[in-house]
Amino acid sequence: MILGAGFGGLYAAKHLNHPSIRITLIDKRNYHLFQPLLYQVATAGLSPGDIAAPIRSIFSTQKNTTVILGEVTSVDTQNKKVILAHGEIDYDILIVATGATHSYFGHNEWAQHAPGLKSIEDALEIRRRALIAYETAEVETDPEARPAQLTFVIVGAGPTGVELAGALAEISQHTLARDFRNIDPTQARILLLDGQSRVLPTYPPDLSAKAQKQLEAIGVEVKTNAHVTCIDATGISLGDERIAARTVLWCAGVAADPWAASLGAPRDRAGRILVRPDLTLPDHDNVYVIGDLAAVAQGEGFVPGVAPAAIQQGRHAARNVLRTLQGKPQLDFRYVDKGSLATIGRAAAVAFWHGFHLSGIIAWFAWLVIHIFFLIGFRNRFSVIFNWAYSYLTFRKSARLIIGGNRKVDR
Amino acid sequence: MILGAGFGGLYAAKHLNHPSIRITLIDKRNYHLFQPLLYQVATAGLSPGDIAAPIRSIFSTQKNTTVILGEVTSVDTQNKKVILAHGEIDYDILIVATGATHSYFGHNEWAQHAPGLKSIEDALEIRRRALIAYETAEVETDPEARPAQLTFVIVGAGPTGVELAGALAEISQHTLARDFRNIDPTQARILLLDGQSRVLPTYPPDLSAKAQKQLEAIGVEVKTNAHVTCIDATGISLGDERIAARTVLWCAGVAADPWAASLGAPRDRAGRILVRPDLTLPDHDNVYVIGDLAAVAQGEGFVPGVAPAAIQQGRHAARNVLRTLQGKPQLDFRYVDKGSLATIGRAAAVAFWHGFHLSGIIAWFAWLVIHIFFLIGFRNRFSVIFNWAYSYLTFRKSARLIIGGNRKVDR
Repeated sequence: MILGAGFGGLYAAKHLNHPSIRITLIDKRNYHLFQPLLYQVATAGLSPGDIAAPIRSIFSTQKNTTVILGEVTSVDTQNKKVILAHGEIDYDILIVATGATHSYFGHNEWAQHAPGLKSIEDALEIRRRALIAYETAEVETDPEARPAQLTFVIVGAGPTGVELAGALAEISQHTLARDFRNIDPTQARILLLDGQSRVLPTYPPDLSAKAQKQLEAIGVEVKTNAHVTCIDATGISLGDERIAARTVLWCAGVAADPWAASLGAPRDRAGRILVRPDLTLPDHDNVYVIGDLAAVAQGEGFVPGVAPAAIQQGRHAARNVLRTLQGKPQLDFRYVDKGSLATIGRAAAVAFWHGFHLSGIIAWFAWLVIHIFFLIGFRNRFSVIFNWAYSYLTFRKSARLIIGGNRKVDR
Repeated sequence: MILGAGFGGLYAAKHLNHPSIRITLIDKRNYHLFQPLLYQVATAGLSPGDIAAPIRSIFSTQKNTTVILGEVTSVDTQNKKVILAHGEIDYDILIVATGATHSYFGHNEWAQHAPGLKSIEDALEIRRRALIAYETAEVETDPEARPAQLTFVIVGAGPTGVELAGALAEISQHTLARDFRNIDPTQARILLLDGQSRVLPTYPPDLSAKAQKQLEAIGVEVKTNAHVTCIDATGISLGDERIAARTVLWCAGVAADPWAASLGAPRDRAGRILVRPDLTLPDHDNVYVIGDLAAVAQGEGFVPGVAPAAIQQGRHAARNVLRTLQGKPQLDFRYVDKGSLATIGRAAAVAFWHGFHLSGIIAWFAWLVIHIFFLIGFRNRFSVIFNWAYSYLTFRKSARLIIGGNRKVDR
């Protein structure tokens, strides 16, 4: 049984396509989400359907796999049962790949003011907030109130924060530039904060510097060593400094879902499960934990929580399951770092790959090709290429819709 | 000032593109919605972004037009003010084109069990309910409970009801056919009800008969002269007859928004404003009401509430506004019926046009061409053509995502 159809669970299931194995794949969504492009849904560049593929379609022809829509509430490793909101299911071997959620570092009251970006619902909420901010500023009669309405603060300058800041800058500088009569969208302030001393802290320092330069070139203000002390409805505080801002977005911390405690395994500070080198639980040979939920030691640190690591772990867990069934010993996992890529608005990006450091349009092009290559489904690939080409040539965004939630301007 | 950026308001604003006129266009959405294809969002064939275009983009280069996101709460015709949720705006001439909403004929308690289809939120809710129904049946352990879970009842066999029924039949017969392991989606029951004696009651009787035949050929059960007496969480009653059904959809009645009463004009039973032949209010030469909110007498009846009528009224109101400004008398509106078209699943449709009655694949092809022609925006046209071609060739639906609301299976 596999819990979660993200990158880890999907690749594990695909690699267990043997008629002698019966797979039950459980996810709380009916679709696999291509998370690396989620920020493009949040910034109106793509529609949810472009980056999601129904899990049932993916496994339609893989007859050994039964897909179940269900939400895990706990795992009973003693009795080998998964408890779902709507019932229980027994397993022989379990691969847990349910991913992570946001962490507000103990300040859950910030969540309502600073949404994070993990799900399509999150992305649509961010899109709604960003678009409503411009609409509200347009009808604002007090000119003093406008700057805060057009201030967007992104907390956390990892890849997602950098990409979100770049895309928001592009919207204000190009997409919306001529669409309003009372405000000038190009005056919007996009502020990217990080607690560490540079953007993209997991990247080599020279690329961090280049990324910051590219961000500043398109109008993003970068503030490093910034420690958030308060977020409320009117803005954000960094110690004594107060920034009035209507829109604050959270790209900082990740945490495990609370139900992961039921696995009864040691966990790190973020709640991630400390697995053995073969990806199994310390006390249970038949339970694998992979992807963002797993803390896999490697060298002096841990394997990073990125899509390529989840994919490799999914494949590795599948391989170990097959070896177990053949009576062979399990193998230890070793993460092969294939490099990293982050994009920064139009035709700018940074990348490193086997010692090469790239930036600018070449890195951006690599980013395009790789992201299209790994997208699941022909239709999605085509649609994403078309939407990117369209939006690149026209500066328009295809999905500028305010849907759901509070659609009203609000002063 | 124009209220509403549906077909009526949009075409009125486009025809008032003169530098001497200042237009304020107010809508509670930030997008123009191509309502005739909304049922395709409800049935996962298209994404919301495919059939919606941001109003600001449409008027980006029409400099005499200011777009405002705002919800009308009332109109003060004496003092020539529109009252919005966030403030008041004065007008000289007003064109009201805010459309209609659902009517449950006095049974508002049915609304929660039988959602209607007027907005993108409605369409996503219907999509969610339909997809969750199959997911729930798949995990159902009591085989007796499954038939009701896979029964879909559509109340109202006008064009929307017919199109929705056809698309749901296509999903169960083709799209989902191989995706489940415990249920056979082709066994789903799609039931189309109408209180009148035939489907498409506003069409010529021979086309109603052909439409019913085409519907039955793709597996839709049609029930005419059916009078709904109760809808609740477990099904629907027609007098003594009870139909157990998890999913009931409402395509029957329309009604005006309650705020329309503030216009102080005589209204028909559905709350529509009875306008004069020149489309103005009886007591106010400077207030036009057009589209689904207007009851425009013509011949023995009223102009139908369809998109072509709203477009013609929008143009006509604009022409009368220009004539007024030139000191010329207003002209009476005359609806030119360009024919009607309704599609029924794959490659089937009925149409009538200037005395010609068409059905089958020719009518379906006419339907495709006309709907693409009237879609606003190049990107939408391209995207819709692509999605249709893709879904026609592969039997897949591009937007099978369960988003928002309750995503859980529920037995």
